[in-house]
Amino acid sequence: MSNSNVPATLRFLLAARRCELHALESLAGTCELVVLAGQLVHALQKERGWSNLYLCSDNDDGLQKLAELASETTHAEQVMRNYLDALVSGPSPVCDKAHFFNRAASAFQRLDALPGLRRRIRGRHTPAQDAESTFTDLIASLLAMVFEAADSALDPDVTRILVALLNFIQGKELSGQERAYGVVGFRAGYFTDGQKARMASLVARQQRSFDVFAQFSPQTALQTWRQLDRPAQDVQRMRAMLENTSEPQRVGVDLAGIWLDLCTQRIDGMREVENTLAQALAQLCQQRTAETRKELDDRRLLLRRFTDRANGKEPSMVYRVQGRIADIPPPDGIGDDMDRSIVDMLCEQTMRMQEDAKALASVRRSLDERTRMEKAKWMLINRYRLSEQEAHEHMLRAAMDSGVSLGEIADRLLEQSREN
Amino acid sequence: MSNSNVPATLRFLLAARRCELHALESLAGTCELVVLAGQLVHALQKERGWSNLYLCSDNDDGLQKLAELASETTHAEQVMRNYLDALVSGPSPVCDKAHFFNRAASAFQRLDALPGLRRRIRGRHTPAQDAESTFTDLIASLLAMVFEAADSALDPDVTRILVALLNFIQGKELSGQERAYGVVGFRAGYFTDGQKARMASLVARQQRSFDVFAQFSPQTALQTWRQLDRPAQDVQRMRAMLENTSEPQRVGVDLAGIWLDLCTQRIDGMREVENTLAQALAQLCQQRTAETRKELDDRRLLLRRFTDRANGKEPSMVYRVQGRIADIPPPDGIGDDMDRSIVDMLCEQTMRMQEDAKALASVRRSLDERTRMEKAKWMLINRYRLSEQEAHEHMLRAAMDSGVSLGEIADRLLEQSREN
Repeated sequence: MSNSNVPATLRFLLAARRCELHALESLAGTCELVVLAGQLVHALQKERGWSNLYLCSDNDDGLQKLAELASETTHAEQVMRNYLDALVSGPSPVCDKAHFFNRAASAFQRLDALPGLRRRIRGRHTPAQDAESTFTDLIASLLAMVFEAADSALDPDVTRILVALLNFIQGKELSGQERAYGVVGFRAGYFTDGQKARMASLVARQQRSFDVFAQFSPQTALQTWRQLDRPAQDVQRMRAMLENTSEPQRVGVDLAGIWLDLCTQRIDGMREVENTLAQALAQLCQQRTAETRKELDDRRLLLRRFTDRANGKEPSMVYRVQGRIADIPPPDGIGDDMDRSIVDMLCEQTMRMQEDAKALASVRRSLDERTRMEKAKWMLINRYRLSEQEAHEHMLRAAMDSGVSLGEIADRLLEQSREN
Repeated sequence: MSNSNVPATLRFLLAARRCELHALESLAGTCELVVLAGQLVHALQKERGWSNLYLCSDNDDGLQKLAELASETTHAEQVMRNYLDALVSGPSPVCDKAHFFNRAASAFQRLDALPGLRRRIRGRHTPAQDAESTFTDLIASLLAMVFEAADSALDPDVTRILVALLNFIQGKELSGQERAYGVVGFRAGYFTDGQKARMASLVARQQRSFDVFAQFSPQTALQTWRQLDRPAQDVQRMRAMLENTSEPQRVGVDLAGIWLDLCTQRIDGMREVENTLAQALAQLCQQRTAETRKELDDRRLLLRRFTDRANGKEPSMVYRVQGRIADIPPPDGIGDDMDRSIVDMLCEQTMRMQEDAKALASVRRSLDERTRMEKAKWMLINRYRLSEQEAHEHMLRAAMDSGVSLGEIADRLLEQSREN
């Protein structure tokens, strides 16, 4: 198509909209990835919990369950692998994804080590604590990948739900850590002071994640979340119970299984919330994409009118601002009307982009703080070979010692790592 | 190619590198755009200066020169138009460029109004001040587009030169404004206090831009810059002279032509510096791209070895870390060595990316402040229909009134515009 007679302004406006469409499609892909990662994380969380129960017990009752869970994990892993492979070998080049793929490489390196870990668990060749921390680090590497993927989200409304989902996944992972760690204590019959402190920290961190989720979540997911009040109360009672245990004041070891079941009820319920969020996310992405595509089509139509006019063809209809069609030619002539519609379109698009940037900035503040904390933690894990737990405790201690927020500590750590 | 037997880690590492290559190629495109925009801005600056001289004089001597300059501008405009058109209709979708294309649409809308402006200038149907400010706003819209394009630069070394170039272009534009504005005063025979203040502000702003340029520029461009000391001294003498003028103490109106010539000598010299920077930029982009492509090829080779091994073919050579070739198979077998090389590669790539992010963060701080100031100014121009000059003065006054930096004022303005 010869464009030379069509105003550059219109062509570039079209190009801008096409970029937005592309970004939305890419965002839809990110949302899909987050959902798939959520499934894999859920499967790994279950494996972690039951592996702990098995390693802390002295019979082989759990082996069958472990085999089932391993095959669930393998399935979820395969689905994500296929998704990423399609992304890698797809026709359109993927932009700004270098960091993301690097994180994916890290995560899959850890995933590849899973069969070996499972063998050591089955043969009881690893302490429960080590197995648990290997699972937790693997899950952290998946979450780091997901946060990296979400880092380039541009649509404010989609990003709101994405922030809700990411925080929910993180809260759920902390619940999973609480479940796995709690098994060890209940199995021993009591919790040491150190163990109690860690359980309390896991509860507090869950609360923070779920608060952010509640702030950004759509109503549907909040309703599903409120239905979990009941299982949450059961877990709460057992949290109070463990507080009162000590070496002389033990509880029955059967409580480990009950704890695991109650936590699992709650965590499986959380999976529902995650699904509701994922649905809302997919729906909104679809809607936004359809809107943008429609607008793009309207503008392409306008572009074609210009080409017709440039080629001397008489336009049969007049297209006005934003593709609305007017049957009666305006008094000041068709051309002027079309020119004016471009100016209006430019103003409208610039205004909308400014509005979007404004809305995005507000929702991103929350995502950015979370992302910086993840990055700082990941830097500690990678550079100083800390476990996820150690990295978090290091940051928490630093925050308490210097009386500033965790976000501030994350900034300082990232700043220092830049200077070194 | 069936990849299912090749480690996912390696495939994703490859994908990460491919994304980096893509980003570098896109950055090379951005650099080209900056150079083309620089040419167009240079032509517009000349037209602005001579238009002022023509409008302030009472004879038609300048008409021939104006026609020549207009045709230079039209040529530079066409080159940039072609470049952008190729970008728009190219085969690969352009990511994250929505804001950029929107800015391009704004800039071209103003460019399309140029023929009308030139008619009004030739017919003396516009005051010099209005013509000058129309040119200046058009140049500002081009610079805004260029800053938007540079906003996604990711390579630290390339970004350093880009920051030097962007600041240099801005300093040069301020010199151009000083040239055009000075013509009006010298033509009148004296400068009012208000005009003197504006001239002084233009000098101070130039200094700031050139300081940042000097901080980030490669040596070659700095040397070219130092050769301009002589014309700079000439301009400096005339600056001192204009300070002493007043309504009763006039200078000869012929000084307007001398001022224009001296400033033009200096600004044409700046064009050399710009070219040197552009060359350094193109060279570095090429070098980085070649390096990345080489590394990618090495990794593809490693990937092929894995595919061969998976298909039962005996590898004839062993590839070690980063594609280095070892003739003697290691004692622990070929496979382990290949597996280990992936782990090394992952560590190496993660480390390098962290180093890059660290270097980039430091150079970006300077770019970001500049970009925020441009964005805030542009917001004032767009939303409140201020001229470039008015917008800058508004920000300067706000900075002086509240005793904070211009960067701080830009942040506050952007923050407020988000809240409204």
